[in-house]
Amino acid sequence: MQSLTQFVLVGRANTPGLGDTLTAIGEWLQAQGGQVCIDADSAASLDVCHLPKIALEDAPGRARAAIVVGGDGTLLGAARVLAPLGVPLIGINHGRLGFMTDVPLRDWQPALGSLLGGNYSLEARSMFDCQVRRENAGIWSALALNDVVVQRGAAGGMLEFVVRIDGDLVYQQRADALIVSTPTGSTAYAMSAGGPMLHPSLAGITLVPVAPQSLSNRPIVLPADVTLDIEVVAGKEMAAHCDMQTFSTLELGDVVRVTPSRHRLQLLHPPGYDYFATLRRKLHWNLMPS
Amino acid sequence: MQSLTQFVLVGRANTPGLGDTLTAIGEWLQAQGGQVCIDADSAASLDVCHLPKIALEDAPGRARAAIVVGGDGTLLGAARVLAPLGVPLIGINHGRLGFMTDVPLRDWQPALGSLLGGNYSLEARSMFDCQVRRENAGIWSALALNDVVVQRGAAGGMLEFVVRIDGDLVYQQRADALIVSTPTGSTAYAMSAGGPMLHPSLAGITLVPVAPQSLSNRPIVLPADVTLDIEVVAGKEMAAHCDMQTFSTLELGDVVRVTPSRHRLQLLHPPGYDYFATLRRKLHWNLMPS
Amino acid sequence: MQSLTQFVLVGRANTPGLGDTLTAIGEWLQAQGGQVCIDADSAASLDVCHLPKIALEDAPGRARAAIVVGGDGTLLGAARVLAPLGVPLIGINHGRLGFMTDVPLRDWQPALGSLLGGNYSLEARSMFDCQVRRENAGIWSALALNDVVVQRGAAGGMLEFVVRIDGDLVYQQRADALIVSTPTGSTAYAMSAGGPMLHPSLAGITLVPVAPQSLSNRPIVLPADVTLDIEVVAGKEMAAHCDMQTFSTLELGDVVRVTPSRHRLQLLHPPGYDYFATLRRKLHWNLMPS
Amino acid sequence: MQSLTQFVLVGRANTPGLGDTLTAIGEWLQAQGGQVCIDADSAASLDVCHLPKIALEDAPGRARAAIVVGGDGTLLGAARVLAPLGVPLIGINHGRLGFMTDVPLRDWQPALGSLLGGNYSLEARSMFDCQVRRENAGIWSALALNDVVVQRGAAGGMLEFVVRIDGDLVYQQRADALIVSTPTGSTAYAMSAGGPMLHPSLAGITLVPVAPQSLSNRPIVLPADVTLDIEVVAGKEMAAHCDMQTFSTLELGDVVRVTPSRHRLQLLHPPGYDYFATLRRKLHWNLMPS
Repeated sequence: MQSLTQFVLVGRANTPGLGDTLTAIGEWLQAQGGQVCIDADSAASLDVCHLPKIALEDAPGRARAAIVVGGDGTLLGAARVLAPLGVPLIGINHGRLGFMTDVPLRDWQPALGSLLGGNYSLEARSMFDCQVRRENAGIWSALALNDVVVQRGAAGGMLEFVVRIDGDLVYQQRADALIVSTPTGSTAYAMSAGGPMLHPSLAGITLVPVAPQSLSNRPIVLPADVTLDIEVVAGKEMAAHCDMQTFSTLELGDVVRVTPSRHRLQLLHPPGYDYFATLRRKLHWNLMPS
Repeated sequence: MQSLTQFVLVGRANTPGLGDTLTAIGEWLQAQGGQVCIDADSAASLDVCHLPKIALEDAPGRARAAIVVGGDGTLLGAARVLAPLGVPLIGINHGRLGFMTDVPLRDWQPALGSLLGGNYSLEARSMFDCQVRRENAGIWSALALNDVVVQRGAAGGMLEFVVRIDGDLVYQQRADALIVSTPTGSTAYAMSAGGPMLHPSLAGITLVPVAPQSLSNRPIVLPADVTLDIEVVAGKEMAAHCDMQTFSTLELGDVVRVTPSRHRLQLLHPPGYDYFATLRRKLHWNLMPS
Repeated sequence: MQSLTQFVLVGRANTPGLGDTLTAIGEWLQAQGGQVCIDADSAASLDVCHLPKIALEDAPGRARAAIVVGGDGTLLGAARVLAPLGVPLIGINHGRLGFMTDVPLRDWQPALGSLLGGNYSLEARSMFDCQVRRENAGIWSALALNDVVVQRGAAGGMLEFVVRIDGDLVYQQRADALIVSTPTGSTAYAMSAGGPMLHPSLAGITLVPVAPQSLSNRPIVLPADVTLDIEVVAGKEMAAHCDMQTFSTLELGDVVRVTPSRHRLQLLHPPGYDYFATLRRKLHWNLMPS
Repeated sequence: MQSLTQFVLVGRANTPGLGDTLTAIGEWLQAQGGQVCIDADSAASLDVCHLPKIALEDAPGRARAAIVVGGDGTLLGAARVLAPLGVPLIGINHGRLGFMTDVPLRDWQPALGSLLGGNYSLEARSMFDCQVRRENAGIWSALALNDVVVQRGAAGGMLEFVVRIDGDLVYQQRADALIVSTPTGSTAYAMSAGGPMLHPSLAGITLVPVAPQSLSNRPIVLPADVTLDIEVVAGKEMAAHCDMQTFSTLELGDVVRVTPSRHRLQLLHPPGYDYFATLRRKLHWNLMPS
């Protein structure tokens, strides 16, 4: 692959010690001949002052890749900005859960060295466009890498919804929530709710209800190129979540529409990345009794 | 069994047409020589004026049994008042879900006739005492027939808790919620979350997480005579629910303690009641493809 | 679509009364101007004597479509012969389970009328090529529409296997069996074992273990264009099943290789076919308590 | 507790090196003043010649406790003989899976020292009596500590059965197998099939189908003091298994009857035994992603 030498750094907000790490990374990259700037919000929150600051939206002119240091939440936030701009990301884990931020913190140097040396792979991850529609017009929209979740309020009271795909009825259901997940999201909330794992290269999405009021529910996996409409027909204080963005005033009759996004997130992996090994090691998938 | 002739009626609030049904039931029972009064709240909400009104708390002096007409929610509400008073209940279904209110509305006459004739069975259902404890003192308590649920807020953010039984660590877990369920509750929310069914005569309880952040979770069934402590160690806007009663200001460090209640709900069943048939018919348990 | 007028009939073997039905179908088609022959094995088993008999393998010269009357098992058997020959099938249900044989028996006349009138849709279903390999050479092969199952013997004793995809380790596991399922098979044995439903148009396959000896297992859905190797590393009396074909002398070290077949089954549907409705009606998918 | 000084040793058959371990254990116990004999079958299979040999059935006159060195399978075998004789067991793990054999091999000395010193706890585990009945008469019976499994043959073909409890219909079902499990067995095969964990002190049993042909199945937990009848109504080459004992010629119409046994297995635990810790450590129960 092409050598990468221009970088923007992104760090998890308000994380003690992370500023020093970012500074160290920046200085090391510069010492290797790279050009490094930092996301202005990260710089402010983490007190990093020796690197040029840019708005993340301006990354395309300044960086050929983003280095995200934090957990999967940090990466999700950066992905929503950078995927539409075509800037690829590498994730370095500085948090508890690091499924997408698959480079261990202690390994940042060889990992970034492999980017500089052109020794890496690119993996494209599909994303959702999500739109909340009221009376046949869009009133809110967002981009999601993991999932779109339609959810009841905490106050109790059920959520009931009707799901249609390309206009055909799929089912009507009562549940705490319905998760529509990409392959990337299939190891996140959808997994907790009992959904299957979807390999990142599968052109598919899955529908996973949370606590459905039916014994005979079962997740379904659909082709990725469908238009999915979730109409809310009963419930209170409902909300739609796209990754961590929330539309909190969902009303009866509103439709949450999920379609494949034309944007894809480009993930950079150093040599040796192994999806199945990550499943086994981080999620303890299929760990046998011992 | 002993003939039952003194009754108090309870109806689901604000239900169109239900007032007429209660009046008809009352008049029919009187015509059979029974004595009938009505819960004052039900009378007010349903516009029933020809029957003597009493506070439900005063039922013991006036009624040997309560006739609850509504859904399982109505029955849960009446049960919390009547179980500690030792007044048995019969449930007549006037709603969508009627698992405990197992007499179909159209059958109220033969069902109540069987009570008058002493031709019925009594079934005792176990209940929970639930206490929220802060700094080793109880600050809220409630009685539950179905379940105690410790739950995260709708705003997202995880819930993390530690479970101990009689002081021994069971596990530490992250999830949307933890359900502690009686056998009665095992066909309600716990069932939606994937829990096993517990036969009503089992001296056991079950712990069922909702959307746990672990592949290797599994519900566990414990003997009923234990003290269960759920300590909240991470989360936001958490709440504890006991059936439909809510303690909404749960804080980090609070402990939700669940113990067996000395009160038991007495359910009256006309002849022919069949628990397994109810599971098959209402929940479609084990319905085979056809 | 093009009008279909040349048919071959296939019926479930040894089914009382089915011969008369096939005869009636044949005569009606002839009365409409169609040409009809019958699979010789079906004719013999069902005593149908008035229609020309052919070996199913010779269908291409004689028939533009096959009419299969029976259950899903009958259709699976016919599909293995006809899919490689490019002859499409319509399934008429004469059995208990008719998920693929989606035309109810009583509706055969309008359904076949729609084929004659060119008023139907064609749906392609993916299939597997399965090969048992020993010492790097194929020793048995078969074609599967539903699934490939590697299974322990009835005598007890565990099955342990290693799964690799395109050479990469997926996992090592102990279980009663491992099911590799197409979308078509996802509503058959894989569903019983807890697998997700895969929409027929998804380019994906799923791996579902039966009774895995691990709490942390979970089905995975993979893209369809992979080479999957299942190596048996422990067990007794193991077998590989491809739909209903069995290789019963699997040995330690044998590899069951599953690859996408270049053959696809063409299914004919009369107007009004609705996959989701079939899921809801036949499998009672998401049937709510009532 | 009372000091234990008379022991019988049992070892897993044909296990290289285990004879030396048994000899070392025997000599050490004798050196501490204990009396030690060995199960004759174990002695023969493991070549242990310096200890007095007895038939395990004669243990009551010679031993106050049995020391079982092996895996859970070894312990199950010894339990069937010793439970009816009232001889308690301690399990020392010399195998892969050691859930009941909870003493690690390296800790045998302190563990056995605690028996000699009277510093241990006794835990009673419930067992099943299982009887195969044909034309209302018992034709085979066995004792089970883990589970009774009614199972289809490997040749395929479904198993269909009717379950009754104390004469009441529970359900009719098609599945690969039905597992009836004690609390002890709930972490064995029933766990693999998706059943709940039952705490050993729960007076309950669970019914768990393997690969049931229904979306709406769910395990149920019943009180322990019931008579459960499983009638086989369809299938081929079916068998009933009680732990590892097999009745392999089950016919249509046969009834497998499961009742609580009056025998209970007495398990000896050194100080520090912790059931929940064992679940977490050996089964990785609730292991969080990391």
